Amino acid sequence: MEFFELAHRQRAYRFLEPDPVPEELIEQILDVATKAPSAQNTQPWEFIVVQDPAVRGRLADHTRHLWESFARDYSRPDVDTYQWSHTDEWASGAFARAPVVIVVCGDTRAMDAALLGSSIFPAVQNILLAALALGLGSLMSTLPIVSAREAREILDLPEHLLPMATVPIGRPSRRLGPPRRIPFADKTHRDRHGVPWREG
Amino acid sequence: MEFFELAHRQRAYRFLEPDPVPEELIEQILDVATKAPSAQNTQPWEFIVVQDPAVRGRLADHTRHLWESFARDYSRPDVDTYQWSHTDEWASGAFARAPVVIVVCGDTRAMDAALLGSSIFPAVQNILLAALALGLGSLMSTLPIVSAREAREILDLPEHLLPMATVPIGRPSRRLGPPRRIPFADKTHRDRHGVPWREG
Repeated sequence: MEFFELAHRQRAYRFLEPDPVPEELIEQILDVATKAPSAQNTQPWEFIVVQDPAVRGRLADHTRHLWESFARDYSRPDVDTYQWSHTDEWASGAFARAPVVIVVCGDTRAMDAALLGSSIFPAVQNILLAALALGLGSLMSTLPIVSAREAREILDLPEHLLPMATVPIGRPSRRLGPPRRIPFADKTHRDRHGVPWREG
Repeated sequence: MEFFELAHRQRAYRFLEPDPVPEELIEQILDVATKAPSAQNTQPWEFIVVQDPAVRGRLADHTRHLWESFARDYSRPDVDTYQWSHTDEWASGAFARAPVVIVVCGDTRAMDAALLGSSIFPAVQNILLAALALGLGSLMSTLPIVSAREAREILDLPEHLLPMATVPIGRPSRRLGPPRRIPFADKTHRDRHGVPWREG
């Protein structure tokens, strides 16, 4: 699918069917993830592709625990009530149904952990767009890895790898419409902050 | 262009022609940037589109100063010599030729600054892919905004906006070939770190 059409259809697919994703599709997704840019072409990403039901179950249990123990209270239902109710359902159980979870890690030997974001999240966006282009649903969540220590234990991660995002992938339970967004012109300034992009 | 073909051709275009970019193309790029995902759909991005030669000049001068005063020594020519020599040329002067620089900021009122990356860099990746799809060259650099205080002064940014990336855009001075990357299978583990994705 053409890039603009694809990107205009991107949504967080939280509800996925449990049937496996063919590994050749997973490989297409990972391959295009590595084409994303990174600072000095350091490519500081490592991917853990979790399909084993025991490991997925531990990630899902841990996520439910994080959600119920603090993240539900910390999150902001005021921002987007529709989105929040789906996150609640996802973190409380639906996550466990996703047949594949890609955990994207950043290598702190390549650069300071605080600088990794600009070299990791473009690759995550490629994963999300690639899944959609292949007819799959996906979403990015940082909740399952918000406690790096426990995620490291579940995934046997060495100390130099920082888990930064999880991307559950699978066949969508239902199709979603286009995303709802504030128009770009309301977020855009001309040359300096405070000068609107368009007059009046 | 189809997403996979496009994403497999993404490169950092550091050398751009100075002729202006039509504003309808800038608008298409910004529009698709806002379709990227963000935590709880908070959409914490703000864009400063710099075309004014005086403001671009101050950004470029500041960037050259940062490069020469510390970043050149801090950077790692050992990682990618080809890439490094182009960065050197870019930061020392070529940056000033880009007709448009989009500065992407994150709103720290939406979430803690340390959490903004997962909600900002996917939008930056959309900007980079969109520019390429429109026949333009672009790159992401965090160097011009590595000192938030001085970038804030140049762009009149309020305290709640954190500049997180700059994206110069323009007509490429020359076409680049496909990106050089480590194969994904060398970066991928099965279920747990240390178990290779493919046997043998």
